Amino acid sequence: MPSRWFLYHTVEDPFAYPVGPGTLKLRLFVQNGQQLSCTVIHSDRYDSPGSEIPLPMERIGSAGGYEIHEAVLQTATGKCRYLFHAENPAGEYLWYGERGLSEIREHAGSFQYAYLHRSEAVKLPKWTSDTVVYQIYPSSFNGGTLKGVADKIPYLQQLGITAIYMTPVFESPSEHKYNTSDYYKIDPGFGSTADLKALVDLAHSHGIKVLLDAVFNHAGDAFFAFKDVLEHGENSRYKDWFVIRSFPLVQSPSPNYETFGKAEAHMPKLNMENPEVADYMLEVSRHWVREAGIDGWRLDVANEVTPRFWTRFRRELKEEFPELLLIGEVMHASGPWLRGDQFDGGMNYVLRDAVLEFFAEQSAGPVRFLEQVLHQEAFCNDQANAAMFQLLGSHDTLRFLTACREGGRGWNHENTAIQRMRLAVFFQMTYIGLPMIYYGDEVGMEGATDPHCRKPMVWQEQHQNMELHAWYTLLISLRRQYEVLRTGAFRLWFTDEARNVLGYIRRSGQDSMGLVINNSPNSYQLEPDSFRPDLHELTDLLTGATVRSAERLFVDVEPFGCLMLH
Amino acid sequence: MPSRWFLYHTVEDPFAYPVGPGTLKLRLFVQNGQQLSCTVIHSDRYDSPGSEIPLPMERIGSAGGYEIHEAVLQTATGKCRYLFHAENPAGEYLWYGERGLSEIREHAGSFQYAYLHRSEAVKLPKWTSDTVVYQIYPSSFNGGTLKGVADKIPYLQQLGITAIYMTPVFESPSEHKYNTSDYYKIDPGFGSTADLKALVDLAHSHGIKVLLDAVFNHAGDAFFAFKDVLEHGENSRYKDWFVIRSFPLVQSPSPNYETFGKAEAHMPKLNMENPEVADYMLEVSRHWVREAGIDGWRLDVANEVTPRFWTRFRRELKEEFPELLLIGEVMHASGPWLRGDQFDGGMNYVLRDAVLEFFAEQSAGPVRFLEQVLHQEAFCNDQANAAMFQLLGSHDTLRFLTACREGGRGWNHENTAIQRMRLAVFFQMTYIGLPMIYYGDEVGMEGATDPHCRKPMVWQEQHQNMELHAWYTLLISLRRQYEVLRTGAFRLWFTDEARNVLGYIRRSGQDSMGLVINNSPNSYQLEPDSFRPDLHELTDLLTGATVRSAERLFVDVEPFGCLMLH
Repeated sequence: MPSRWFLYHTVEDPFAYPVGPGTLKLRLFVQNGQQLSCTVIHSDRYDSPGSEIPLPMERIGSAGGYEIHEAVLQTATGKCRYLFHAENPAGEYLWYGERGLSEIREHAGSFQYAYLHRSEAVKLPKWTSDTVVYQIYPSSFNGGTLKGVADKIPYLQQLGITAIYMTPVFESPSEHKYNTSDYYKIDPGFGSTADLKALVDLAHSHGIKVLLDAVFNHAGDAFFAFKDVLEHGENSRYKDWFVIRSFPLVQSPSPNYETFGKAEAHMPKLNMENPEVADYMLEVSRHWVREAGIDGWRLDVANEVTPRFWTRFRRELKEEFPELLLIGEVMHASGPWLRGDQFDGGMNYVLRDAVLEFFAEQSAGPVRFLEQVLHQEAFCNDQANAAMFQLLGSHDTLRFLTACREGGRGWNHENTAIQRMRLAVFFQMTYIGLPMIYYGDEVGMEGATDPHCRKPMVWQEQHQNMELHAWYTLLISLRRQYEVLRTGAFRLWFTDEARNVLGYIRRSGQDSMGLVINNSPNSYQLEPDSFRPDLHELTDLLTGATVRSAERLFVDVEPFGCLMLH
Repeated sequence: MPSRWFLYHTVEDPFAYPVGPGTLKLRLFVQNGQQLSCTVIHSDRYDSPGSEIPLPMERIGSAGGYEIHEAVLQTATGKCRYLFHAENPAGEYLWYGERGLSEIREHAGSFQYAYLHRSEAVKLPKWTSDTVVYQIYPSSFNGGTLKGVADKIPYLQQLGITAIYMTPVFESPSEHKYNTSDYYKIDPGFGSTADLKALVDLAHSHGIKVLLDAVFNHAGDAFFAFKDVLEHGENSRYKDWFVIRSFPLVQSPSPNYETFGKAEAHMPKLNMENPEVADYMLEVSRHWVREAGIDGWRLDVANEVTPRFWTRFRRELKEEFPELLLIGEVMHASGPWLRGDQFDGGMNYVLRDAVLEFFAEQSAGPVRFLEQVLHQEAFCNDQANAAMFQLLGSHDTLRFLTACREGGRGWNHENTAIQRMRLAVFFQMTYIGLPMIYYGDEVGMEGATDPHCRKPMVWQEQHQNMELHAWYTLLISLRRQYEVLRTGAFRLWFTDEARNVLGYIRRSGQDSMGLVINNSPNSYQLEPDSFRPDLHELTDLLTGATVRSAERLFVDVEPFGCLMLH
């Protein structure tokens, strides 16, 4: 019954969005398991019916219960009318347009991309795609000071990273400093504004960008405005800077004002709908870029701050600093914040969940893993996917190596933990977006969730896993060497569920690379279809070994091994 | 195979949106024909797993290839985590969350409505829901002047309408005036600013609101800025007010600048991404509200103007004039413009298409008709649906009665044209949103598309269809009398495809009304399930006839008849 297929599309990001001048990307979700071939039929909106051009869609893969199909179309006028045609192998078909699904084309209507505005395609800072990020928790990195961080710039440069993101450095009574007392002052324990400027200058001179963490969802209870409300109650001129249910203000046993999380009394929620507070925080945001020359902001608990603030924040900051990178912390699906009017990218915890299941817990096989990878991509536009901080862990999670040691199945998982971590890092460094390394992961640090994941960095070489460190260094250098790894499209190659092996391809213009991951304790000889039938010789860039392909491509892969075929 | 069902939801309007303080509406699309029962399981985002509450979802109906299910949930904290459970009659089930569809709850993950912001629920002008709109094409209404329009205010008040929307009244060389020469001047043929003020004052004193039409997508080629570019070419300080491909400017045979439509040389597209042009048009928008006290703007070709302008337009105008109604002209699906940051409502041509098919062309039966009605509702939030201009025709379409006369099937369609038009008007006046009457439709005017649909209003009673006029007057007065017809939810009651009969319900608090439409030339006795089993006596408000329901409800309906059961 063709009428019972279900397809989904809407003329909104991420189902329809500009990827360049006169270039529109269309995404269509179709029901799994129907082997549908999809075509988009399009024309200028003001052309008469009959002038439509058919364009076959690419099947990207399965994801979360449906298939993703995509097409990129050119529109000279920017005014585009289109509808979809989906057909199964039995020749049954459906039309799909603005009026729904129908076997009758006229009943389906057409979708209308009204006008492709020149300003609409999201522009990322030029340096985005070349970046590998290193997250620093300043209290624990090197002596707990900005000067200490600066001292390690040579170490970071040698590792190959090109940006550091530091959790908050502004005055705060806590170790983590997410309860800001003074947004204009570097925490005295960390140093001074001069130290920050020196760190940024030094980093820049080593080709390293610096991003800071801004906490605008809530302040600390030592923030001057909150102290004023504590003191003057209803008479405080700052009472509308917070969300206060009644006076007098009570902090314990249970606060009578909104807070971060559940009743975190020392983190009063800021009323960011109050233009005065918005003005204040905008000025803070501009101040540190002007003063210290930082390259981006990571915005804490971005999902709970009114989007009206973020749209203004983006507009005003990008106007003054077009090369500033804006990353929102959204610990779940961040698509709604990445439509082009708020953040460039997010902290990709959803990708981390998929990586965790597959490599660390081994609770998902290659099929589900790649489905989950495509699923989280499918709800963002290309530009947002290219600006995601792709993390294996952070100061808010258990460390990835610890997850690997605790997870795993069947065979001796303790002994394979490092091997599985290496595979996860291989995936991270060969996937799209900005790989983000949590400080110490590269030398094999372990730790459960906070506070264990925030322990001091291990600097003594005898306690560092130098082999893992070398692995990170190699992969980062290959990523920096091969542009296709940074900007190429990500496509599935093959999955072998029984063997727990998968392959994917990065492709950009004429260049392509085949990546193979064996997530099992066995070695295999595989025979995938070649991803470049014109090439009869491939090199594994990890080992320099040559793989010859006469008519068929045979590749050998070690237990928990991986290949980077070029 | 449960894993092959397809459901769709995203944590974005219109799938998740606030409808009031602490109140969230969730919408879920599910594949047709699976008889799925759906439940949403929700909790505070910071509560631990296990604290979720199940809430059964309401199946609203089928629409365009899928079913719509909805739930309204309360969230005390505004931070909501939820996932869906869908089960078929065989007991097979799926979970659906942010990570996709799965038989395993943990694999599905949860959706996160991060924070329900106080400012977020869209607020409409208070007068929106009580409004019946009358569209006037000033050149043809009464002597082609604003004074002429004013003279007919008593006529309009008698008809019962409560708002007039006039196509453009600003200076322009054309009859339709969509190519504005001077945004600050009333077209001299129509009168003066004083005439507009007098008209608005008079209308207001009769309880009638006034909306004007603003054309910001393009100007006329006699607009001062375009004339300046014509004169000074590249040296004009206004050259960036338009989208010019090369100099010198050429108007014929083919313009070398962007225009409305396909090369309409006399309608140069305005560069609304230029802040100077945006400022200018914002000032125009404010000017006429301040100067003449108008109650709303209808924005021409709104879909081709950059959304960045409209978000600013809404923010600035609503701040100064919170009771101003903003209606965007989007001739296709307008959902993307009605997410709360641009327009209150749209010109609902998509609903008109469905009404046209069913009543005028008789090319669709009751099932498709109601599916199409729900389909266009499903892509908008409740507030937008409540602010739609529900039209049967306009200055850009053929008149509805002409469509009825040309359409129809089988039986003598010419003779039933008026009867089918009466049914369409009955639907319009008993449906949600703001019914919009195109001048003259109420007296049986006919005409094909432009210019025929823009002919002078027929004022001589001997040429007016007074029966149709009485029908409009009756229905409008019933709509104004029964609040449930203005604000009640719209729900399906029954469809009888073979007989071409359907029923629907309007429901609001304790009140409900059953509406029946017989779109066939036969009379029937129907036996629908009662929509109010507690009521044993219903009155048809159209005739005063009583319908008694002992155990079963029998209703008689005439050929092309309708019932309003209360």
